Amino acid sequence: MAKDNQFVNQIADIETDFPRWYTDVVIRTKLVDYGPVKGTMVIRPYGYAIWENIQKELDARFKATGHQNAYFPLLIPYSFMTREAEHVEGFAPEVAVVTVGGGEELAEPLVIRPTSETVIGEMYSKWLQSYRDLPILINQWANVVRWEKTTRPFLRTSEFLWQEGHTAHATEEEAMEETMKMLGVYKEFAENCLAIPVFTGRKTEKEKFAGAVATFGMEAMMHDGKSLQAGTSHYFGQNFSKAFDIQYLDKDGVHKYAYTSSWGVSTRLIGAIIMVHGDQRGLALPPAVAPVQAIIVPIAAKKEGVLEAVAALKAELLAAGIRAESDLTDNSPGWKFNEWEMKGVPLRIELGPRDIEAGKMTVVRRDNFEKSEVSRENAADTVKKLLADIQTGMYEKAKRRKEERVVGADSVEELLRGVEGGNFVKAGWCGCRECEEKIKEQTAASARVIVEDETAETCVCCGKKAKHVVLFARAY
Amino acid sequence: MAKDNQFVNQIADIETDFPRWYTDVVIRTKLVDYGPVKGTMVIRPYGYAIWENIQKELDARFKATGHQNAYFPLLIPYSFMTREAEHVEGFAPEVAVVTVGGGEELAEPLVIRPTSETVIGEMYSKWLQSYRDLPILINQWANVVRWEKTTRPFLRTSEFLWQEGHTAHATEEEAMEETMKMLGVYKEFAENCLAIPVFTGRKTEKEKFAGAVATFGMEAMMHDGKSLQAGTSHYFGQNFSKAFDIQYLDKDGVHKYAYTSSWGVSTRLIGAIIMVHGDQRGLALPPAVAPVQAIIVPIAAKKEGVLEAVAALKAELLAAGIRAESDLTDNSPGWKFNEWEMKGVPLRIELGPRDIEAGKMTVVRRDNFEKSEVSRENAADTVKKLLADIQTGMYEKAKRRKEERVVGADSVEELLRGVEGGNFVKAGWCGCRECEEKIKEQTAASARVIVEDETAETCVCCGKKAKHVVLFARAY
Repeated sequence: MAKDNQFVNQIADIETDFPRWYTDVVIRTKLVDYGPVKGTMVIRPYGYAIWENIQKELDARFKATGHQNAYFPLLIPYSFMTREAEHVEGFAPEVAVVTVGGGEELAEPLVIRPTSETVIGEMYSKWLQSYRDLPILINQWANVVRWEKTTRPFLRTSEFLWQEGHTAHATEEEAMEETMKMLGVYKEFAENCLAIPVFTGRKTEKEKFAGAVATFGMEAMMHDGKSLQAGTSHYFGQNFSKAFDIQYLDKDGVHKYAYTSSWGVSTRLIGAIIMVHGDQRGLALPPAVAPVQAIIVPIAAKKEGVLEAVAALKAELLAAGIRAESDLTDNSPGWKFNEWEMKGVPLRIELGPRDIEAGKMTVVRRDNFEKSEVSRENAADTVKKLLADIQTGMYEKAKRRKEERVVGADSVEELLRGVEGGNFVKAGWCGCRECEEKIKEQTAASARVIVEDETAETCVCCGKKAKHVVLFARAY
Repeated sequence: MAKDNQFVNQIADIETDFPRWYTDVVIRTKLVDYGPVKGTMVIRPYGYAIWENIQKELDARFKATGHQNAYFPLLIPYSFMTREAEHVEGFAPEVAVVTVGGGEELAEPLVIRPTSETVIGEMYSKWLQSYRDLPILINQWANVVRWEKTTRPFLRTSEFLWQEGHTAHATEEEAMEETMKMLGVYKEFAENCLAIPVFTGRKTEKEKFAGAVATFGMEAMMHDGKSLQAGTSHYFGQNFSKAFDIQYLDKDGVHKYAYTSSWGVSTRLIGAIIMVHGDQRGLALPPAVAPVQAIIVPIAAKKEGVLEAVAALKAELLAAGIRAESDLTDNSPGWKFNEWEMKGVPLRIELGPRDIEAGKMTVVRRDNFEKSEVSRENAADTVKKLLADIQTGMYEKAKRRKEERVVGADSVEELLRGVEGGNFVKAGWCGCRECEEKIKEQTAASARVIVEDETAETCVCCGKKAKHVVLFARAY
């Protein structure tokens, strides 16, 4: 393990001041910076490269499940917001409003999309004619704006990047199947690419999307035991198709309203990666989405043949599809080790005169700091194998924590102790909003998802018959 | 060639009503639709897939030339606009202004980025410390908003998608080298991927970007002989670095202002593809960016073995990296031929019982309607070869037109006749704004680019000594 040094000192203690640790890490590793307008962020190249890898992986999954991308306008007539009663209640308070365009006051104010159900609903109502046009399976990669009072880079910002899938179907069953399918895609992606195990399940009425019949969420446990909602998939029934007149002529000659869904994940996922895998040394990025998967550090770089050997190794790894980089700066090897550890690069490869002579290279894993000498021959295969091991190792580690840190509770006091101890708490719930709000008030924990296939006798709050088992946690 | 039918009748005559032809084609082929807010567009899946291919090709080129992607905020404080005098004059009249956020009047109004020099300049001034930080080579894929009075899908809309590269350098030479390098990247991309030959060159003072020292443009000749500005690359000198305090500490211990550049292309390129290659049958898409490169149409689809043969061929082409699709709808083959011709798919493959028995397939090129029988064996190689030929054929055809339709002029009257005849006109120009404006007034043609390495005796307008040869054209 590299020695502690000033890098570590630049980062607040992860155990005692996690919020500061988070801010220190995202700024110091140049993932992100604060934009000039309060609450906005600039995603810097190192952060954006993670987003590009996320996009590439997700986009392939969306296309493999039959979706196509499209692009809908940023600006939405204010009146659209009001057509779905719950939707306007949920989103109107946090929209940014354009009132002037081209030097003139606009006849109708426009909102910058906080989400696109309304404008996409309007277009679907134009495009949808016959049952033959169904299903409509479209995704959009876009920016959205939600005016937030308290903001933190990646987690909650006035503008963020996301994807929003919007689909229309002939039947309730198909729309619900789509909703669940995409929740499954998110879960598989989170586990396999981000190395983040997740809880998935239905949200309570209080926590669901404004305008949805049902929202299903994917929740991940952060280092501090708090939950981050990492993705959602919504079933709308006919709420939006009635509000926007999304009708089609069915085989039987009758006009019918379509059933719609939407689903989205955002740059928030980068926050999840940071808070699940990070440690006192900084970031730890899962190989599947790391901008640099292997960093090659020359040892005794001025000795004959070292830089050539580094260049040859880099070329070999790049040719094998590994995102390899070499650090040829003037900094000392120790400095470089710490720098790239802080930046979370999964694998470090040290290459010096002795390694070269012995036909070896020294590899150090970011996930467990294991250092070993491996043969220089078949370097690409070895590195691929190591990256796969790191990916699995990171997932297993996060999974262990997730499993260890779920406790039960028979009373609100116990629930409070549970979340204060950095746990998720499973408890019975009667199903009424009053109890849900009381629990939130007394513990600062909210209902994250309803747990399927589990039952409880009584509600943790009122003691009446429990309707559901709910996973409670404090959340970002 | 497929017989004329209702498809062609749905599209206005390309020779007599080109504007209507354009609108008919973009709407009928589902490239685009009008958004609910005046002047906005919805890029539908077929149009967006072209944009994705453009992005993929360009992004690879940007990265190969050392650039990284990042993302800067959509919203810019109004005061930023005013820091560079020419910039505010050019862009302030067409910005959309946010005055309300989160239900409250904002202390300072925010503009939706019409372009990002200002907000990126602000960030660069924060990030740039030492000469070691230079050059900064960043690109952004984003949406921008410019309030336009007269709009047309892809060509001029209130919101459009683009990329904007923004770079900072230690010296004038390096910044200028970058400006020209990226103009060269655009030109190579336009010629090799879009099959569009272009004129490149410096813009006049009147036509340059608001805030630039020099703008270099890429102009393409449309079917009707008008010009489309298809991309620009700007050299800013120290205009923006002084306005935004982009300074660095040089080796000699002196603080110096950086030299900056920016360069961009947009969804306008899709308009260029349509207007350069389209014909009376509709779109003709260059294989390099066509969403579907080869469409397989079964003949006598109900005959035994046909659908299986179609599926096998499609799988074989897809496996070889060809964007192949098959049309298994109930429509007649004739209908399908016309439909896919209208959609501009470069190659049609017909596969029926006779082809299958003979071990053949029938291929029809979209660019010249040549129909031939080729062996079913090595289908992927054959199709790749044909697509390459089509790509070249389309470029050569556009190049011939571009070369045939450039004429000279010794007087404004001659210049007028030239542009009225659907030509670009090369003419001498004294360099003064009065003449440039007079020419515009009398001919509706503007100075597109200054022609390098050519000289003229006299100005086409005032008859005084010519300073430059200029390419004049009417423009979109």
